[in-house]
Amino acid sequence: MHRTKVRVVEDALDANNTIARANRDDFDRHDITVLNLMSAPGAGKTTLLERALGEPLAGIRVGVLEGDVQGSIDADRLAGLHIPVTQLNTDNGFGGECHLDANMVRSALGDLPLHEIDMLVIENVGNLVCPAEFRVGEDARAMVCSITEGEDKPLKYPLMFRACELIVVNKLDLLPHLEVDVDKLLYNIDVVNPDVKRILTSAKTGEGVDELRDWLAELAHRRVAVRA
Amino acid sequence: MHRTKVRVVEDALDANNTIARANRDDFDRHDITVLNLMSAPGAGKTTLLERALGEPLAGIRVGVLEGDVQGSIDADRLAGLHIPVTQLNTDNGFGGECHLDANMVRSALGDLPLHEIDMLVIENVGNLVCPAEFRVGEDARAMVCSITEGEDKPLKYPLMFRACELIVVNKLDLLPHLEVDVDKLLYNIDVVNPDVKRILTSAKTGEGVDELRDWLAELAHRRVAVRA
Repeated sequence: MHRTKVRVVEDALDANNTIARANRDDFDRHDITVLNLMSAPGAGKTTLLERALGEPLAGIRVGVLEGDVQGSIDADRLAGLHIPVTQLNTDNGFGGECHLDANMVRSALGDLPLHEIDMLVIENVGNLVCPAEFRVGEDARAMVCSITEGEDKPLKYPLMFRACELIVVNKLDLLPHLEVDVDKLLYNIDVVNPDVKRILTSAKTGEGVDELRDWLAELAHRRVAVRA
Repeated sequence: MHRTKVRVVEDALDANNTIARANRDDFDRHDITVLNLMSAPGAGKTTLLERALGEPLAGIRVGVLEGDVQGSIDADRLAGLHIPVTQLNTDNGFGGECHLDANMVRSALGDLPLHEIDMLVIENVGNLVCPAEFRVGEDARAMVCSITEGEDKPLKYPLMFRACELIVVNKLDLLPHLEVDVDKLLYNIDVVNPDVKRILTSAKTGEGVDELRDWLAELAHRRVAVRA
C-alpha cells in the first residue's frame, strides 16, 4: 500500500516536471527570468513585492503571477504598482490546491504578457510543504520566513528551506516585541541549507529591501550573462 | 482530464472518511473526545497548548498527538507538561505530507495511551489548506489564526475557516506593533463562517487562555451529556 502510494506520487511529479520543462521552453523563448516565491501564509510576500517593485528595477520589466486558493486580494494590492499582475486561483473542483503546479502555471501562460516582461515573479500559495515539491518552470526559488513564526521552522519544514536559493527573513521590525532568537533561526537555516543566501528585511520599515532589489536584478542579469 | 482529477480526489476523500470512521469507533470505544487543532505554521498552537494544559483541566485527562513533517520539537516542548504526548511524522517516502489524514492517525493509535485519556488533542501540520480537507475521526475542529498573518486570511483560505467550530485569534499582545485591524479580521471570519465561536488570546500574556480551557472542558463534557 505504502509502496503504491510512493509510485503514484513519483508519477505525478514526473508528469509535473515534463510540463515544467514546457513552461521553461516558453519562458526561454521570451527571454524571461522566472522566480518562484514561496512562504507560509502571512509571511509578507505581497508587502515585500509592493516595496521591492514600487520603483523600476534597473530597466527590468517585471510581471507578477499571483497564486491563491481563492480571491484576488493580493493581485488587487499590487495593481497600484502599474506592472502587469495576473491572478491564478487553485480552487477549481476541490477544496483548493495548496500549491501551484506546472500545469496550473501553464494554464495561465495565455494571460501573461510574455512579450512585455523580462522577469516573472510567481507568488505561490502560502504553504511551507507542497509548493517546494512542484517545479513550475522557474529559474530560481526563494522563500520568505517571518520571524513571528519562530526559530524552529527550518527544522520542521526542511524541504522548503532546502529548495530555495534565497531565504528572506522578514518582519525584523517586530523583533523587540518577540521572544524569538534570530541568530538561532539563522543557525537552523544553516543546518538544513548551509550555503543559502539570506536577506534580513522589514517590509514595514524598508530595511533590507534594497538588498532584495539587488538580488532580483542580479537574477535577471544571470540570464543575460548565460546568453552572452 | 479535469473531471478525472476530481474523481480521483473524491475517491481519496471517500477512502479517508472510511478510515476516519474506524478511528472514530476506536475513540468512542475508549470514550475519548478528539479535537483536530489546525493553523498556519507558527501561529502558536503549541504555545497555546502549553498554556492551556499547564494545569489539570477539570478532571479531564488530556493527551496530545503531534503531527509534523519532520522532527519532534513540539512534542519535546510539551513533554514538560507531564501529559502523554505522541509524535507522528509525515515525511515517510516523500518530501513530506502537508496534512494528517485518517490513515496516519490510525497508524499512531497503537502508540496512544487510549485507556488513560479522556481527550486527545491532535496538533495537525501547519497549513491552512489540506488539513481542513481530511477528517481523522475527530469530534471537533479548531484553528489558531495569528493576527500577524493579516486580516485577509479567512477570505484567502475559506475552507479552513469554515471547517472549524472554534477560531482562536492569537498573538493579541503584538497588536500595538502591527498595522493589522482585528475588527476587520473578525469581520472577514464572519463573512466565511458567521456563527463560529471565536476566542481572542495571547499565549504570551495568558489573555483568553481561561476561556480556551473552558471551551476544551465543555467539549469533553459534551460527550458525557450525549451519553447520559
